[in-house]
Amino acid sequence: MSRRPLGRKEWDVRASTLAQNTHNTIRSIVENLRVEPNPQKDLIALSIGDPTTFGNLNPPDQVLAAVRESVESHASRGYAPAKGQQEARQAVAEYSAHQGEVTADDVVLASGTSHAIELAITALADPGQNILVPRPGFMIYQTLAVGLGIRIKYYSLLPDEQWKVDIDDLENQIDDDTAAIIVINPSNPCGSVYDKQHLCEIVDVASRNHVPIIADEIYEHFVFSGHKFHAISSLSEDVPVLTCSGLTKRFLVPGWRMGWVIVHDRHNIFGKDIRNGLNNLASRILGPSALVQRALPSILKYTPQSFFDEVILFIESQAKLAYEELRRAPGLRPIMPQGAMYMMIGIKMALFPSIKNEFQFVECLVKEQSVFCLPGKCFEYPNYMRIVLTVPEAYLREACQRIIIFCKEHIDYGEKRKEVANDDITVPHNIEVL
Amino acid sequence: MSRRPLGRKEWDVRASTLAQNTHNTIRSIVENLRVEPNPQKDLIALSIGDPTTFGNLNPPDQVLAAVRESVESHASRGYAPAKGQQEARQAVAEYSAHQGEVTADDVVLASGTSHAIELAITALADPGQNILVPRPGFMIYQTLAVGLGIRIKYYSLLPDEQWKVDIDDLENQIDDDTAAIIVINPSNPCGSVYDKQHLCEIVDVASRNHVPIIADEIYEHFVFSGHKFHAISSLSEDVPVLTCSGLTKRFLVPGWRMGWVIVHDRHNIFGKDIRNGLNNLASRILGPSALVQRALPSILKYTPQSFFDEVILFIESQAKLAYEELRRAPGLRPIMPQGAMYMMIGIKMALFPSIKNEFQFVECLVKEQSVFCLPGKCFEYPNYMRIVLTVPEAYLREACQRIIIFCKEHIDYGEKRKEVANDDITVPHNIEVL
Ligand SMILES: Cc1ncc(COP(=O)(O)O)c(C=O)c1O
Ligand SMILES: Cc1ncc(COP(=O)(O)O)c(C=O)c1O
Repeated sequence: MSRRPLGRKEWDVRASTLAQNTHNTIRSIVENLRVEPNPQKDLIALSIGDPTTFGNLNPPDQVLAAVRESVESHASRGYAPAKGQQEARQAVAEYSAHQGEVTADDVVLASGTSHAIELAITALADPGQNILVPRPGFMIYQTLAVGLGIRIKYYSLLPDEQWKVDIDDLENQIDDDTAAIIVINPSNPCGSVYDKQHLCEIVDVASRNHVPIIADEIYEHFVFSGHKFHAISSLSEDVPVLTCSGLTKRFLVPGWRMGWVIVHDRHNIFGKDIRNGLNNLASRILGPSALVQRALPSILKYTPQSFFDEVILFIESQAKLAYEELRRAPGLRPIMPQGAMYMMIGIKMALFPSIKNEFQFVECLVKEQSVFCLPGKCFEYPNYMRIVLTVPEAYLREACQRIIIFCKEHIDYGEKRKEVANDDITVPHNIEVL
Repeated sequence: MSRRPLGRKEWDVRASTLAQNTHNTIRSIVENLRVEPNPQKDLIALSIGDPTTFGNLNPPDQVLAAVRESVESHASRGYAPAKGQQEARQAVAEYSAHQGEVTADDVVLASGTSHAIELAITALADPGQNILVPRPGFMIYQTLAVGLGIRIKYYSLLPDEQWKVDIDDLENQIDDDTAAIIVINPSNPCGSVYDKQHLCEIVDVASRNHVPIIADEIYEHFVFSGHKFHAISSLSEDVPVLTCSGLTKRFLVPGWRMGWVIVHDRHNIFGKDIRNGLNNLASRILGPSALVQRALPSILKYTPQSFFDEVILFIESQAKLAYEELRRAPGLRPIMPQGAMYMMIGIKMALFPSIKNEFQFVECLVKEQSVFCLPGKCFEYPNYMRIVLTVPEAYLREACQRIIIFCKEHIDYGEKRKEVANDDITVPHNIEVL
């Protein structure tokens, strides 16, 4: 053929901007850790928020039975509607009655809470717009938004006030391009649980400024004794809220990938536009596995309260254990959580002059003590590390001992002691994260 | 508080461009059909490509057994790596050996083939670029691309040459912004299966113009007697290929949402860039359900060939049945497929002067005969409709009878007969689709 090629003259294939700018920080740190653990000590991973890793926490038999039944059922094999099977959405609506009035029509099922959050963000925000994200905060928002050209703006949480939102800072971050405020409650990584009054303060900011809320309540009901969980949607009068949750944490099945987004829109501010938008977006990949959809009604109805209570009781006792132990680690400042399954620990870096930053701190901790914590970097929050509380008690205890040894071996009070006040773990306002 | 709100002065929440511009045509037509079927006849839906709808086709017990086992296994509960469990990817690599050399590292698991295609498109194409899509063709590409600002350009298939690609047209469509050529083989909706020589012609165009191929081979091995399936990747020397497939059709479990994309890149043209890109994109929602991932090795290894053979034999005999019947329907021109599970039927609209177009044709067919076919509109191809061949034989036979009655009732040879040659079902070059 003599036709002149119309395309390129040579191969030049590049990954798209979206592919290049999509980063899952936790995943890439956890999946690509470069340091070898100390071969003399078994690795204790306090890094990934997967409560099933060690086999000490398992879903109750009701949950497994529901899926066993689903495998046998014809209804678990065919395509479901893009937003999910009617019965499954109905079950989520009933399960979520504490959030306010919810019907099956308000529910869109998703492939995990990450996907629910993707639906929520991409329904509301255009490239060039921004979403407000708590700092420190779980980073799925960045993973999902940045590649699409949706900008992230941070609002500060206050470590000395149980990680409450700095309300002034939140309000100051809002601009004409703000498409949504993300609220994570209970929080990953902080383990904070906001009381009614504080949640109302947040809703007020959203209301005054006419900005919708995306509520990440994947840890709903995960609260320790003396605290109470309130769904932020239940406290909102006018502000429309998209609430994201799923089976992942509460039912101990992160691998099953079952999440959902619920539309709360009492004043009909979203209107049909956002609901249609969510449905359109769900039709891209046609929802979560019908194997789990079909089991959902039974899972949500028949899992006994005692199961949830036992899991929380365990995590609370682990939190106390870690807190009491790590208070004794020189140079560290653990912050006692109120819920979820994590604890943040401040590192007084000035007392560890031989270690450059908290990232190197956790690397050395792996190399010397085979304990793997997540660096604050993963949450845009230097000088801290996060531990996961769901590992077996003996492991947690052992890990704390090793952390204490590590701190004792590396602490250097020297001249610096004078400069370092007890609670001198501050985050500069414009942190340049590594 | 006296602070002046920084945000908007009133509520004004709109769905994002992505949400507004994402449309799944088939889903919205099927989920929102406005015509009522004839109450005197049971509805026979020949519309959606779900082989499980009628219960006559079921996955073999090996497949169910694998998932039963998976439910009991601890490994099906935790998070998998973003691109999928190693054992599952290894199994896909072995299952896909006919595509060329494939290792577990070349495989990324996805939540259904739709998600695999989303990963492939979004890894390669930026907003403003275009992908070339066959017309008629399955529309998931439009659903996934348009909202992101990735443009669709069509290349023509030739109905009179068993839906082969119009090679000249394909080459003419390529421009500097072409990010990929999509090849669907065997085809939905055409049921065509390309021979080696024709696939090589397509690869040659891609090679000459330096454009990668995305191969949608979800119907791999679905070929009738006398035809042979070739993976396009196995015929490519230099052109890098991303092949998308999954369990959906071949294992009769569309609801399970298990798909994968396989990187073929013998000349290292994609390099690390595209592989990393795919992995980044997979980390957005963390892959398909581990319940199915864990079962994958067993499913792919132990499903007996006899199961596949039986399904194909059934579909082939259905194709023959429908073809023989519908040849007798005045005004229709069925095109005998060579594989997959569909048949395209040309409608000589000029012979149905009381019916505006093929969309109205299928609507009237529902209203009068309670038979639901998909209008060509769903594939950007007017004057045709598509039927699904996987329904039980008795239903297909009954549906064909009803279609024949319908045609006889509406056909009007009148003066028009002279104008309508026997194969006068042409598609104008610049079709404006409704
Ligand atoms: C706050 C928060 N949101 C979302 C997710 C993602 O959940 P899923 O695994 O259901 O996608 C996590 C997981 O750790 C989380 O902690
Ligand atoms: C050609 C083609 N590609 C992709 C898909 C989507 O497959 P899945 O259901 O696995 O997402 C289909 C489904 O009908 C199809 O026909």
